[in-house]
Amino acid sequence: MTDSDELPLSLVLFSGTEDKLQAAAVLTAGAAALGRPVHIFLQYWALEAFRTGHIDDRRPLSPEAGEFGEQAVEGMRAAGQLTWSQTLVQAKEIGEVDIQACSLSMDLLRMSAEDLDPIVDGIEGVAAFYVNAGDGQIVFI
Amino acid sequence: MTDSDELPLSLVLFSGTEDKLQAAAVLTAGAAALGRPVHIFLQYWALEAFRTGHIDDRRPLSPEAGEFGEQAVEGMRAAGQLTWSQTLVQAKEIGEVDIQACSLSMDLLRMSAEDLDPIVDGIEGVAAFYVNAGDGQIVFI
Amino acid sequence: MTDSDELPLSLVLFSGTEDKLQAAAVLTAGAAALGRPVHIFLQYWALEAFRTGHIDDRRPLSPEAGEFGEQAVEGMRAAGQLTWSQTLVQAKEIGEVDIQACSLSMDLLRMSAEDLDPIVDGIEGVAAFYVNAGDGQIVFI
Repeated sequence: MTDSDELPLSLVLFSGTEDKLQAAAVLTAGAAALGRPVHIFLQYWALEAFRTGHIDDRRPLSPEAGEFGEQAVEGMRAAGQLTWSQTLVQAKEIGEVDIQACSLSMDLLRMSAEDLDPIVDGIEGVAAFYVNAGDGQIVFI
Repeated sequence: MTDSDELPLSLVLFSGTEDKLQAAAVLTAGAAALGRPVHIFLQYWALEAFRTGHIDDRRPLSPEAGEFGEQAVEGMRAAGQLTWSQTLVQAKEIGEVDIQACSLSMDLLRMSAEDLDPIVDGIEGVAAFYVNAGDGQIVFI
Repeated sequence: MTDSDELPLSLVLFSGTEDKLQAAAVLTAGAAALGRPVHIFLQYWALEAFRTGHIDDRRPLSPEAGEFGEQAVEGMRAAGQLTWSQTLVQAKEIGEVDIQACSLSMDLLRMSAEDLDPIVDGIEGVAAFYVNAGDGQIVFI
């Protein structure tokens, strides 16, 4: 099998800023729509963004966004654009998207399984992440 | 074809900080010099950096650069080092470098085709990005 | 050879924040434990973090970490968790991990070979980086 449509895409989500979560959600939805399995591995501040009861919180933007960026993102919200978590839910409906929390980051943030939003499918270590990634692309966001 | 020299390199440019744009330009020029096709996909604040009439603006550095970093980058400028946009122009002259604006980010920033610096070759969606990336590496900057 | 265990993993370390260095060290150790060669290419502020005599300095976190993040990382330190540089040393003991400083970034930061912590194996240019990366994944952190 060397068909690129069959290779999984693995995203390591590290950053919890709203703009990067949006970018990650769009990259996920696009790959899922093309029939590619997508594995998402949640680390650090991205994991914090998937805390149960807080997945719809407004999160900060990257510092470089500036006031212009804030206004642009606010305009998207006002226009009823899907949020990053809604985009991920949709991606899971149309394709094969697996979201795993990094076990080491769970320890760092003192989170346990019940602290995770139901969109998260499980908890895994780095070794499992690499095994699932296989030969596919790995993107750190 | 499994020759790595033939696989495209795809860079998703998200960040509009000068240091990351420089890093991206150097990675682009290096791959182009080795004969690899390079696809650049402009999102969010990186897209903003390619706005016509503003591509030579000084842009902020990553917050972690600090005063030391500012001085280092200033020293490079004073020494006549190529800017990131000049490096990209050069990379296009020596190799196959295609720069595309992400259509969703165009909407976010309310930009249209005439707002893009001529170094940008076109506008595409996420699906086209993945098709062009094929089995090659994808790097998010 | 198309066995994914044999493909190298290449990490471009750009960011010098402690959280991203930790994430990079964990990804390195995990890949090394699976028998994959890991190539690390140090650029910009990550290179600064490998300055001799300063590799154990406490470094800033990403801005988005906030006070909560500072406390989480402090808790890990207090619990005797390995630092990122200790994790890299361990990864080099169990696997094949090669750490190279980017020659252009050496110029930017006005560093010479003797300014590099001994954990760094050498200095190379972008072309050498791509040749060593081959068809393996490239991850920018």
